[in-house]
Amino acid sequence: MQIAMIQDEIIPLEKLAPVHLDRGTFFGDGVYEVLRSYNGKIFALEEHLQRFANSLSAIEMNNVDIGQIRSKVRTAFEKAGIPNAQIYFHITRGSAPRNHNWDDNLKPNFFLTITELPDDKKVKAEGLIVSTHPDWRWKRCDIKSLNLLANILARRDAANKGCAEAILVDEKSFITEGAGSAFFAIIDKALRTSPLTSNILPSITRKFVIKAAENISLKITEKSVTTQEAIGADELFIAVTTKDIVPVVKFNSKLIGDGKPGKYTKLLMEEFRKFTR
Amino acid sequence: MQIAMIQDEIIPLEKLAPVHLDRGTFFGDGVYEVLRSYNGKIFALEEHLQRFANSLSAIEMNNVDIGQIRSKVRTAFEKAGIPNAQIYFHITRGSAPRNHNWDDNLKPNFFLTITELPDDKKVKAEGLIVSTHPDWRWKRCDIKSLNLLANILARRDAANKGCAEAILVDEKSFITEGAGSAFFAIIDKALRTSPLTSNILPSITRKFVIKAAENISLKITEKSVTTQEAIGADELFIAVTTKDIVPVVKFNSKLIGDGKPGKYTKLLMEEFRKFTR
Repeated sequence: MQIAMIQDEIIPLEKLAPVHLDRGTFFGDGVYEVLRSYNGKIFALEEHLQRFANSLSAIEMNNVDIGQIRSKVRTAFEKAGIPNAQIYFHITRGSAPRNHNWDDNLKPNFFLTITELPDDKKVKAEGLIVSTHPDWRWKRCDIKSLNLLANILARRDAANKGCAEAILVDEKSFITEGAGSAFFAIIDKALRTSPLTSNILPSITRKFVIKAAENISLKITEKSVTTQEAIGADELFIAVTTKDIVPVVKFNSKLIGDGKPGKYTKLLMEEFRKFTR
Repeated sequence: MQIAMIQDEIIPLEKLAPVHLDRGTFFGDGVYEVLRSYNGKIFALEEHLQRFANSLSAIEMNNVDIGQIRSKVRTAFEKAGIPNAQIYFHITRGSAPRNHNWDDNLKPNFFLTITELPDDKKVKAEGLIVSTHPDWRWKRCDIKSLNLLANILARRDAANKGCAEAILVDEKSFITEGAGSAFFAIIDKALRTSPLTSNILPSITRKFVIKAAENISLKITEKSVTTQEAIGADELFIAVTTKDIVPVVKFNSKLIGDGKPGKYTKLLMEEFRKFTR
């Protein structure tokens, strides 16, 4: 008899609920998005949906209607009624007995949560500290996929060092990005960040940071920062949907500038705030 | 109200079943094994359990008792009563609201299936054809983790080309391994395969292939094969738990040797068979 076992319980294979045969679990075969709302309004929904469509296409999931996703997100957001919310959703390719090869007729599994997003004023005012970790991720980090083991192991390493974020470093000592954020430096009065390649997630927040930099006439150089450059930078910050811009005041135990959020970082934070009104 | 949505159904967040909050799905935060039995006897159980322990340790899951895993596998295998079975199992770190950081007190989720494993005599007699794909995987392929999107996308690309397996090639044109198998060449009367580094899964079948090669006094060279070398090789084969040794007779549309399973490959298959009695 073909069987399955869940924890200690044995059941006939054919009695398994589809959720136990999710390709999302077997292979991380799915993609996701994280959005937030400010004061009852979802921020950059269309940008997130476009990136989600790109991720789906990159993993050859061509049977998802983005219009339906938009409608699910809107329906759930209205139902939740949380003005400042975090919206997470993923789609996996579907449920089937484990097999590397997939059937194009599988029905995708959609999952979403909407939760309160507390405003972390303290960390935005004081900045956070980060440490580096080798970038162990795969070669298609432009896809926002459920394959995140490298990210969580790096984040854990940072947490063990008392740091809030892991900054990922490639084999040539270039910083790619954070384990869950984009990374920026202010060097010689210019904004530096990695160019968008297949090693980098095309961060939506990054896009708005660049727009904010343009608005304050700050020069933008899309060139990866080395760890040495980061240590000597005038200012550092990370950017992520759930917190937008967060100053970095310590990098691998080295103080950045005077150890307080920098001038340009604060200007960018102020400018960013205008987008969210 | 904090909510979740599964397909189109909205439910309060706190009503979500733990299976929907599995870190295995959110992050691929888990590790797995695939074993097989021959004629009622599980093959290389201890080797698989040792590798599983190594994978668990590498992702810092230190709360899993391998003795209990062994007992679950044995119990389920006896219950199934399938002489030639495929045994798949994984453990994820547990279920919790999505957060990169984990709580060490999470209860791991264990999942196992035991299914009939049909003997594919035809493919073993005639060989299969393979194509190459860039190795997009992460830098810790020595961990048998649930982050397998690179593998399934490569396998899909192979399938689109009418091939049964994707052979993964790094940026320097060296073959690492197959999307779901170890890769071997016979060149100048010697067995060639990649050395075990962090880019390679320490295949259990590989270990027995090497033992088989020793038994027939075949020289073994642990040095990665380039795609050019593979095309010009005398013989090629892959090795995987579920099928042990399978000859490769075509590589990127080029016939290998005379397009039939090679002499040494057949000798190794015969030798391997002795281990399984």
